[in-house]
Amino acid sequence: MNVHVAPAFADVPQVYKRHVFACYTQRPPGHPRGSCGSQGAQPLWDRLSRKLEAEGIGEVGFTAAGCLGFCRAGPLMVVYPEGVWYAPKTPEDVDEIVETHLKGGELVERLVIVPQR
Amino acid sequence: MNVHVAPAFADVPQVYKRHVFACYTQRPPGHPRGSCGSQGAQPLWDRLSRKLEAEGIGEVGFTAAGCLGFCRAGPLMVVYPEGVWYAPKTPEDVDEIVETHLKGGELVERLVIVPQR
Repeated sequence: MNVHVAPAFADVPQVYKRHVFACYTQRPPGHPRGSCGSQGAQPLWDRLSRKLEAEGIGEVGFTAAGCLGFCRAGPLMVVYPEGVWYAPKTPEDVDEIVETHLKGGELVERLVIVPQR
Repeated sequence: MNVHVAPAFADVPQVYKRHVFACYTQRPPGHPRGSCGSQGAQPLWDRLSRKLEAEGIGEVGFTAAGCLGFCRAGPLMVVYPEGVWYAPKTPEDVDEIVETHLKGGELVERLVIVPQR
């Protein structure tokens, strides 16, 4: 597929090849909306960011995010510029996202989630 | 410019047409790294998100972010999928980003910043 990008945007240098935003929202137990934090997000994101740092993958940015808005689907992260949302549940899931998508440039289809807004 | 997108990525439905991440980091006065918050970020982002909500622009996502990593350049926000970083300083700057880029799909060149990592 070829995507047309307006010239002005194409001229803007990219800071990162890929940029991960991961939800760190932690609501108290029993909160009606739940949260990524209450579904075990934090150790997963800490693993992901440490892995990027340890392997010196500077071309992938990692930013802690507030609520991404689809709390029941968490833990939620999104990777740009591809606009792929993932809901990893285990450390192995995180490792696969790092190796296959963030380093390898391929989709981890089994972990993709498409939130309905 | 034509950008090749691997088929698997092109098949993933996009949750948002554009997604704004804005740094809400607030470090105490005198902190050596400074922060977007200490440079007046919060009222700007509140204005931006209220504006999106008030105008019912649901196809543009807004997410509060932690530190984006280039603190002296703040207040910092980034718009994906274009990967454009902006450093607005005034409410008028924010309004121009909403009208011209987020709604209009065109770059606000005078507010672009390209952080060096």
